[in-house]
Amino acid sequence: MDDRLLKRLAEEHGTPLYVYDERRIRSNLRRYVRAFRSRYPKVRIFYAYKANTSLAVCRIMKSEGAGADVVSAGELRTALKVGLRPEQILYTSNSKTPADLEEAVRAGVMINVDSVDEIEILGRIARRLRKDTRISFRINPSVNPRTHPKIATGLRNSKFGLHVEKNIAYDAYIKASRMENILVAGLQTHIGSQILETRGFEDATRKVMEFAGKLAEAGISLEFIDLGGGLGIPYQGKAALTPEKLASRIVPIFREGVRALGYTPELWLEPGRYIVGDAGILLTRVNSVKRTPYKNFVNVDCGFNTLMRPAMYGSYHRVSVLGRSGSRSKYDVAGNVCESGDILARDRSLPRVRAGDLIAVYDAGAYGFSMASEYNSQPLTAEVLVSGGRSHLIRERGRQDDLYRRQKIPAHLR
Amino acid sequence: MDDRLLKRLAEEHGTPLYVYDERRIRSNLRRYVRAFRSRYPKVRIFYAYKANTSLAVCRIMKSEGAGADVVSAGELRTALKVGLRPEQILYTSNSKTPADLEEAVRAGVMINVDSVDEIEILGRIARRLRKDTRISFRINPSVNPRTHPKIATGLRNSKFGLHVEKNIAYDAYIKASRMENILVAGLQTHIGSQILETRGFEDATRKVMEFAGKLAEAGISLEFIDLGGGLGIPYQGKAALTPEKLASRIVPIFREGVRALGYTPELWLEPGRYIVGDAGILLTRVNSVKRTPYKNFVNVDCGFNTLMRPAMYGSYHRVSVLGRSGSRSKYDVAGNVCESGDILARDRSLPRVRAGDLIAVYDAGAYGFSMASEYNSQPLTAEVLVSGGRSHLIRERGRQDDLYRRQKIPAHLR
Repeated sequence: MDDRLLKRLAEEHGTPLYVYDERRIRSNLRRYVRAFRSRYPKVRIFYAYKANTSLAVCRIMKSEGAGADVVSAGELRTALKVGLRPEQILYTSNSKTPADLEEAVRAGVMINVDSVDEIEILGRIARRLRKDTRISFRINPSVNPRTHPKIATGLRNSKFGLHVEKNIAYDAYIKASRMENILVAGLQTHIGSQILETRGFEDATRKVMEFAGKLAEAGISLEFIDLGGGLGIPYQGKAALTPEKLASRIVPIFREGVRALGYTPELWLEPGRYIVGDAGILLTRVNSVKRTPYKNFVNVDCGFNTLMRPAMYGSYHRVSVLGRSGSRSKYDVAGNVCESGDILARDRSLPRVRAGDLIAVYDAGAYGFSMASEYNSQPLTAEVLVSGGRSHLIRERGRQDDLYRRQKIPAHLR
Repeated sequence: MDDRLLKRLAEEHGTPLYVYDERRIRSNLRRYVRAFRSRYPKVRIFYAYKANTSLAVCRIMKSEGAGADVVSAGELRTALKVGLRPEQILYTSNSKTPADLEEAVRAGVMINVDSVDEIEILGRIARRLRKDTRISFRINPSVNPRTHPKIATGLRNSKFGLHVEKNIAYDAYIKASRMENILVAGLQTHIGSQILETRGFEDATRKVMEFAGKLAEAGISLEFIDLGGGLGIPYQGKAALTPEKLASRIVPIFREGVRALGYTPELWLEPGRYIVGDAGILLTRVNSVKRTPYKNFVNVDCGFNTLMRPAMYGSYHRVSVLGRSGSRSKYDVAGNVCESGDILARDRSLPRVRAGDLIAVYDAGAYGFSMASEYNSQPLTAEVLVSGGRSHLIRERGRQDDLYRRQKIPAHLR
């Protein structure tokens, strides 16, 4: 998406504004699929909705034939709303309410179970409803993916999954395989997000395949083994792990495991960030520039309410000043949230910035809008999808009234 | 609020649920006011809306005579909506759009200016509208408040305010005092949030009063000097700084400064967290309990989408299991957001927890709901206000449709 287009969109729709590139979303997905499908015949993709759940994006994923990895009843309903069939939906969460579980059973989606407590509760629900329910268990492989600790989900002390140690996962499978109305269908693992080294993936694949072998010995064969998502993208522009490299490392381990199983399970994958991350740009306008004796600040018209990642994880996003060039100085790009941690980009070398300039924040398509809030009473931002030569407003800007929705003032305070 | 009441409210309104105690909000405010007003005659309180902007809470503050410290056009509109007069509203932000500034000028509220760029833009707007506009400048006092770096706003390299160094703030006052339609009315500083030591406050007060003295020499006298907010609360139950102790330390410094000024400005204060923090409890229900070889997890029905502080700042909130006692073990209280950083409380000694139990998360009245999001497609939670013997639903639980509001699917994706 070139600068002229971005400027035009900012004029037309105002700022802050998320802009997504449909072609890029599709090509990312196809590249991911190809990398794995060229190395293993039975691959299915479940797009991780949490990365970006805007309906237009979910529809693009559906049109590409991808299923949905959903993490809440809310996402499950969205997957059905955009037209996925129940068998295209995998519902994973470490903590589901009984109502969530009942809804998932009735909908007939695959339920990825996270604990012994949960399979017992789910078993009771399935029996009560007399509805056969396909499940997998999430396995905690106790591996270190070398990413930000807040998003490293496969560490042995993470909240996710059942451990292989002490036969916890094994016993759960045996128990589930004997439960009425519970059909053991798969095994899932996911070691984290924004991972740029293959070692954690390799370790997890090896452990999971070894565990599947143990289940096979007990007579439990699986329709699928799901290796999750987690492939990082090069936010800092450095050489990153690619789908091809990831596939070339883990598929051989997977295939070797399959040979020992005596049957051929499907390989399921759950990319999210890789598909939409670099397909999104956040546009924000400069309100003022402040020179201090210690730093220079570019004050923009959005903050961590709009893009949480820098404040939450210390994430790096490339930024540029549209249409500016020439000699550079160092600036912090400061958000408009009333917290000093609200800095979108630190110590960046930028051409001279002036009030009114437009700043593009790159790689903002994943975990951008989906994490946005109305903190500081700032209504949610708008989203635009660029498709071929055309642009479409896919979410109108929020309004003041949104802040008051569902609020009531008790009579004695009126 | 006793456990029986909390249990009843969870039954009646479902979980997760924020519950606030009106009496506590009022008594916190009155205690704060008294601590300062007993030591200085002209004190005005501007409640920091960002801590909790629910309309019922804002109405309580109004009924107590408190003004509003607002940080966005959205909060400004809320302050007017709940019935505050413009002169009761102080608008502070490091980054205001030209439209925000024009709206504030038209509304006639006090505008706290954050940069030289901004006073120039504001001057042009006020002149164009031919509307006299009262302003203060935010001063960066370059002090260390000893709090979490993300909320330490008075550090010399923070994005907030004009520095005293190199005459930056001084020159801005001189410039503003000569601008048409700009009336220099005050001086503001705010060194951060959740501060439990007085030293930073003392340093900032001293610097600000010294600076006011310098302005007085230049013939600029101020209607008010605003020392901001920032008083912390004892999340961990340890002895904390109190309003009385804070006032006893900084008011003498303030008064000494006032004696040198030759006039008697008002003292403005902006408490937020202190007023509402300990008046709020978040109730969440246990979905499942998981024992692993490394940790035990209590999986609850909310996560950092509902209460951001633990995941964002590593904040500590006391928790209890309602109605349970007996021998204790260590648990992590794990949220339901699909990130491993979503742990509400780590390594807590709790009585044996079972699925279905209710967990109370204390001191959740400030920066709780106001920072909430719909991340993971979880609709916003409900809020209840307890007033004397009665409870009032002040915000209904969000619904699935909220997730789709203002979304549009382009024709080619339908």
